[in-house]
Formats: sequence, structure tokens, C-alpha cells
Amino acid sequence: MIKTIHNHRSIRKYKSDLIDDTVLKGILEAGTRASTTGNMQVYSMVVTTDHNLKQKLWEPHFKQDMVKQAPVIITFCADFNRFNKWCEQRNAVPGYDNFLSFFTAAIDALLVAQNVALAAEDQGLGICYLGTTTYMANTIIDILNLPEFVIPITTLVLGYPDETPPLTDRLPLEAVLHNEVYKNYLPEDIDRLYAEKEALQETLDLLEENKKETLAQVFTDNRYTRKDNEFFSEKLLDVIRKQGFMKDDL
Amino acid sequence: MIKTIHNHRSIRKYKSDLIDDTVLKGILEAGTRASTTGNMQVYSMVVTTDHNLKQKLWEPHFKQDMVKQAPVIITFCADFNRFNKWCEQRNAVPGYDNFLSFFTAAIDALLVAQNVALAAEDQGLGICYLGTTTYMANTIIDILNLPEFVIPITTLVLGYPDETPPLTDRLPLEAVLHNEVYKNYLPEDIDRLYAEKEALQETLDLLEENKKETLAQVFTDNRYTRKDNEFFSEKLLDVIRKQGFMKDDL
Repeated sequence: MIKTIHNHRSIRKYKSDLIDDTVLKGILEAGTRASTTGNMQVYSMVVTTDHNLKQKLWEPHFKQDMVKQAPVIITFCADFNRFNKWCEQRNAVPGYDNFLSFFTAAIDALLVAQNVALAAEDQGLGICYLGTTTYMANTIIDILNLPEFVIPITTLVLGYPDETPPLTDRLPLEAVLHNEVYKNYLPEDIDRLYAEKEALQETLDLLEENKKETLAQVFTDNRYTRKDNEFFSEKLLDVIRKQGFMKDDL
Repeated sequence: MIKTIHNHRSIRKYKSDLIDDTVLKGILEAGTRASTTGNMQVYSMVVTTDHNLKQKLWEPHFKQDMVKQAPVIITFCADFNRFNKWCEQRNAVPGYDNFLSFFTAAIDALLVAQNVALAAEDQGLGICYLGTTTYMANTIIDILNLPEFVIPITTLVLGYPDETPPLTDRLPLEAVLHNEVYKNYLPEDIDRLYAEKEALQETLDLLEENKKETLAQVFTDNRYTRKDNEFFSEKLLDVIRKQGFMKDDL
């Protein structure tokens, strides 16, 4: 287990080999063993293998080729649709058209996704998370026919790796760990915690490539800009409203 | 790995045995190997073992005794504070005071939490997620001194199990699985998918205990009511604003 966890790297190139149905089923079953709030299981997994559908999903996922190349795409959704239908059929009045319920369902979907990711890697498969899912949720909803009370939260591409990238760097444990309570960072803490990352050859290459003075500027000016973040924030909040999760707010 | 995943049950009674520092460190390191957006690692883990602090956390976690009993409490936070400080010290202007950035950081925190949960279980520890974290985020922020741009997303209690509960039931895989695109549920699908759960002795006991006609009513009327959901929705949105993640919305 620990070995699989420590061996994780995101895979962006896949062989054309398909994933055996039994293997895939085992991985998805592993997903369902994750904890969910009140054991309500308010999530769904949409497994897409069809060439044309993958082609369609490639667009909202910023045209990353692995979406077309990987044999299996799994979209993990916050899903109160099934639960609501069950309530209504059982003479119960659901009260899940609010932000807390959306967030609860998103938590379910993410814990399930990480179980699926680790189970897949344990089987020798490669995976990559697609953060574009929340940016482009609206388009993905249309492609996958997601009804009211269903919102895509994250996506995994799965397949047999056609590359063996090195492990990616991590900040030292102390950067993300607080003992007892949160201890805020002093300027010298920040310098110390980021020193190793900033000295990597990969970082120096990025600075040259992007003509930037610091790695932080690569993030703020190129990768995750204020303009994009604000644009996609508005879109995501619209999706949450449109899918029925902020009815008390209107 | 698969075995650890399939063996998961939430543990609510703990022995007083402490967790060895090396074991705990290994588990936390496993957390840091999870994928995060752009490898930004915009999360924090606050590890609380102090008796008085656990006593304080017990209140917002709805006075569940395991919070006082378990030797270790880990609060997983969406955290752009460290990243923002780094940007500011590196002549970069962060644009992460918006909802998308909050949600991105929450995704990071949850994938890390599930790695930690599985690594802990792999070491023979028991765990339980506390969904109360998002309900009572405001109080937890005060207890743990969380600064602006830090929000608690979920909590794990960890310790050596003092009970061996049976595995909890799950809906059949087909209930949460959609092939290619989402296929909405017909009334007969709902009946079939919930039949096994509704027939469990545990369910029949719950109906009697709660004097309810259907299991769905136990959820809507007692466990997760509209009134509570709407109240905690408003509180959670307030926390997101207060911690600085909706500045473009004001």
C-alpha cells in the first residue's frame, strides 16, 4: 500500500492496450469502499471509453492528448440525483438543494476518486487527474448528459503507461504540517521551505522557458492567473446554481 | 493495497495506545505523495494530540467521544496562505482570492486525506472521517488559529481500534456507475438498487428506533434535514467569504 502511494506519478502518455473488464470492475469496486457522508454514497462515476465521446471530452479538458489516448476516462460527480429520487419514491422530502449538500457530495466523489486512483496504480495502471473538470463543468455536463443535482468534480484518465517519468518533487513535510495548531509562516520559513524546489534544474528550465524571474511568477502570470481564476470561479458558481444546489440563495 | 481498501470500516472506539512518531510521520509523508493541482500543494494538515485542544475540538465535532478518545486528530485544510506568502516574497502577484481557488485547494486536501486514511489503515490503525468539519468550520478556525486563506475541509481521527465493526453495506456497483454517459434512473431502477439496503436488519432496527416508515425518511427527517442543511450552507459560505476566497463577489 505504502509502496503504491510512494510510487505515484501522473502519467500523460498511454499505450493503446485496453483495460480488462474484470480489472476495471475491481478498481471501481475499490472506489465504492471509500467512506461517504452517512453512507449516502452521493456520488457517481461515469466511465467513458467510446472514441467519439473521448474526442468530445478532449475539448473541455484543454485538448490534452491523453484524454483521447488513454483507454478509460472516469468522471467523478457529486450526485444527489439518485438520492433525491429515492427519497421521493419513499415518501420522504429531500432537503439537498443547497450548497452544503453540494459540498458534501463533492467530498464523497473525491475520496472515491483517490481510492480508484490507488487501486488502478496497484494494478500497474497509470493515472492522471484532470483539474480542468471544475473549470469546464458546464460543457462536461452537456457531453455526459448529467441531470440536475449532478456536477462533475474531478476526472481520471487511466491506461497502461507509455512513459516512466521521475517522481515529482514535494515540499518538505514541515511545509504542510502544523503541530497542535496552525503556526503561520515567517519570511525565513518560506525561504527555507521553497529553497529545494526553487533550486531544481526543472525550475531553472521553467524560468528560462517562460522568461520569468521567479517560479512563483510562472504560476501567477502563466499557469493560474487571476483572470482565469475569476472567470472559472464565476462559471463554477453558475454551474452549482444551475444544477440546483443553491435554491435557498435565489 | 486492494485488501486495505476493502477492509475499511470507520472506527468509533479507540484504545489509549499512542501512535509512534515514526509511524505517524510515515503516514503523513504518504499524504504528501497525492496529486495536487499543478503540484502547488495548497493544503495543510494540522495534527492535534494535546488533551485540552482535543477537548475543544470535541465540541464543534458534535461532541463525538472518539474525538477525545483517539490519540491523534488530523484536520485537513484548503490552504492558499503559504502559497500566497511565497508569491508575495517572490515578486509575484497572487490571484487566488476566489471561489475556484478555494475549491482547487479543497480537492488537494481531500486527496491527501484519503492517502493518509489508507496509509494509516495499512499500518493497522483505525480511522473515522468527521463530516462535522464543514458544518462547524468557523469554530474550528478559531480553535486551530487558521489564518485567512485557510479553511478546514475534513478531519480524520486516528488510533488503534478498540472495536471490530462489520463492513458497512454499499449499494451495488451499478447504482453509482454509468457507462459512457449518465443514464437517469427509472422508478424501477431505484427500487432494485435500494432493495438490499432496505432489507437489512440494521435498516429495520433504524425504522423502529426512529418510528419511521422508510429509511429515506430517517435521512430527510432526522439525520440530514433541510433546516440543518440550509443553516450550515449559510455558515459555510460565510466562512469561505470570511477567509478571503470570494473577494471578487463582494
